[in-house]
Amino acid sequence: MIIDCHGHYTTEPKDLHRFRKDQTEAVKNKTPLPPRAGLKMSDDEIRASIEGAQLKFQRERGTDLTIFSPRAMAMGHHLGNEKTSLEWSRICNDLIHRICQLYPKNFAGVCQLPQSPGVSPEGSVAELERCVNELGFVGCNLNPDPSGGYWKDPPLTDRWWYPVYEKMVDLDVPAMVHVSGSCNPNFHATGAHYINGDTTAFMQFLLSDLFRDLPTLRFVIPHGGGAVPYHWGRYRGLAQDLKRPPLEDLLLKNVFFDTCVYHQPGIDLLIKVIPVENILFASEVVGAVRGVDPQTGFYFDDTRRYIEGAPGLTSADRAKIFEGNAKRVYPRLKVIP
Amino acid sequence: MIIDCHGHYTTEPKDLHRFRKDQTEAVKNKTPLPPRAGLKMSDDEIRASIEGAQLKFQRERGTDLTIFSPRAMAMGHHLGNEKTSLEWSRICNDLIHRICQLYPKNFAGVCQLPQSPGVSPEGSVAELERCVNELGFVGCNLNPDPSGGYWKDPPLTDRWWYPVYEKMVDLDVPAMVHVSGSCNPNFHATGAHYINGDTTAFMQFLLSDLFRDLPTLRFVIPHGGGAVPYHWGRYRGLAQDLKRPPLEDLLLKNVFFDTCVYHQPGIDLLIKVIPVENILFASEVVGAVRGVDPQTGFYFDDTRRYIEGAPGLTSADRAKIFEGNAKRVYPRLKVIP
Repeated sequence: MIIDCHGHYTTEPKDLHRFRKDQTEAVKNKTPLPPRAGLKMSDDEIRASIEGAQLKFQRERGTDLTIFSPRAMAMGHHLGNEKTSLEWSRICNDLIHRICQLYPKNFAGVCQLPQSPGVSPEGSVAELERCVNELGFVGCNLNPDPSGGYWKDPPLTDRWWYPVYEKMVDLDVPAMVHVSGSCNPNFHATGAHYINGDTTAFMQFLLSDLFRDLPTLRFVIPHGGGAVPYHWGRYRGLAQDLKRPPLEDLLLKNVFFDTCVYHQPGIDLLIKVIPVENILFASEVVGAVRGVDPQTGFYFDDTRRYIEGAPGLTSADRAKIFEGNAKRVYPRLKVIP
Repeated sequence: MIIDCHGHYTTEPKDLHRFRKDQTEAVKNKTPLPPRAGLKMSDDEIRASIEGAQLKFQRERGTDLTIFSPRAMAMGHHLGNEKTSLEWSRICNDLIHRICQLYPKNFAGVCQLPQSPGVSPEGSVAELERCVNELGFVGCNLNPDPSGGYWKDPPLTDRWWYPVYEKMVDLDVPAMVHVSGSCNPNFHATGAHYINGDTTAFMQFLLSDLFRDLPTLRFVIPHGGGAVPYHWGRYRGLAQDLKRPPLEDLLLKNVFFDTCVYHQPGIDLLIKVIPVENILFASEVVGAVRGVDPQTGFYFDDTRRYIEGAPGLTSADRAKIFEGNAKRVYPRLKVIP
């Protein structure tokens, strides 16, 4: 089977956007918050939004199960406040849960967390626990920069984050390190902020003993690991210069890369330099790039083709990338036989 | 001949560091600034610092000419203020000039600019002009984030930067887009901030019509273009989704990548996806990574080996990467016959 570890619900019902707009404007204008009960999202509307997009692509591309989370750009931890971030996260996570119930064979849930700039991640623990224990989710998305492009909170390796990590370890769920939108005009979200977030997180892990403290803590770095595999020699060299252990020992038991890299040469490089055990199939559908590559005639984000086109992989390697690694990193995945 | 377009003077005389420390502390403590006349850096000391490092590597690796600039990490535009940034830049640039005079066959100068967070780049025009017209420099380093990791100034494509660009066009010199040190604990300088700066600048260029305004403006994006070549499919796809022209038309007449990528698979990818006309040989010596790669037995930053080891390059291609492109991008290079 083929498990896509990185999909977002980016085709949400319109009323969800209306609610979020009302909510963030109410915070700005100090007017009453919109009632959650006013949200109108029918099962039919949700079905239509999924059937015409994520499910269609699963069928067309022959993938089976998507590890599915709310739209990353819309997490918007820099908007509103701690209270609205919590309500917004609950709503988005519950919506993912509805989709997982409507299509239990096709989707497994991953939650966003109610982060807020400057607010202790301790505030995210209860929602993580709810999503895993009550909704059956298999992981979470963790935003390393709740300030949305100004990077004001401590690095991911600071004890600041440990309450969430301890809960992740306790529940045996990984986090995908995933920024949200950028309110910094320097950073285009999907073209710069996302990729920078990935690169930044990896370098933070390289510098720290986080995984000595928490040896079973696991992160997936999306978008093929940002710049990291392309600069693997730089990172091996930096680790050596800084008297850190070799990367295999330092972090490759804990850090994994997805395959959201949208051309064959990029995937070839990823597979060449990163151990096959550390690569999880993903497409980020429906996500950052939605068009067809005129050079190939296929969707840029149809990443299955690149894995299948990559030289040097055995069928056992491909089985790890498509399925085995995901089951290992997300052990709560109840995979449909 | 082989031109290395990216070298820094990272083996400076000790008294330079003493001066800078005194200077930045004087600003902090509001005490008198140290006098420039107090700086003690003899020709012998400079010679020794170069002979044992940059020149030694040139000889060992068989490269001929390095386009040479002050230590990037030490530009520290976020330290001190506009006035001290100007004096510090002049001192560092004059030091590069001394080296170019001591070794005119081996080094061509590139200046740092007296940038300061929130201060108009207009303040950098005079120093750029002085370095090119009086010191014979061939280019400049432009810091896209003078705030040192908080990204508070406008994007590189904002009119804010046009005074420097107009002077660059006027003088026919390129800029290398190069951040300095990071005072943001999230970003390790050479492991995250540098690479993020490269990726960020490219995406800013992709979104703008800067090169329609200034068709002869030229930038070198160092460190192999950050994450960009690895995600070339993503960038082609984003440009297409955003209804931008194809990247070749949009920016490849103006934007170039260096070869500071420290392993063979990275260079192979760079050469595979980026047109050979847009690649300039560079090693960043003595720079970010100083050790020997245990997998190869050679220095990580001995990038000439990777270019020579890359499949599919003709000798004409290699001549462009090693020499021809640099002469085209840096037309003021007075190359020793």
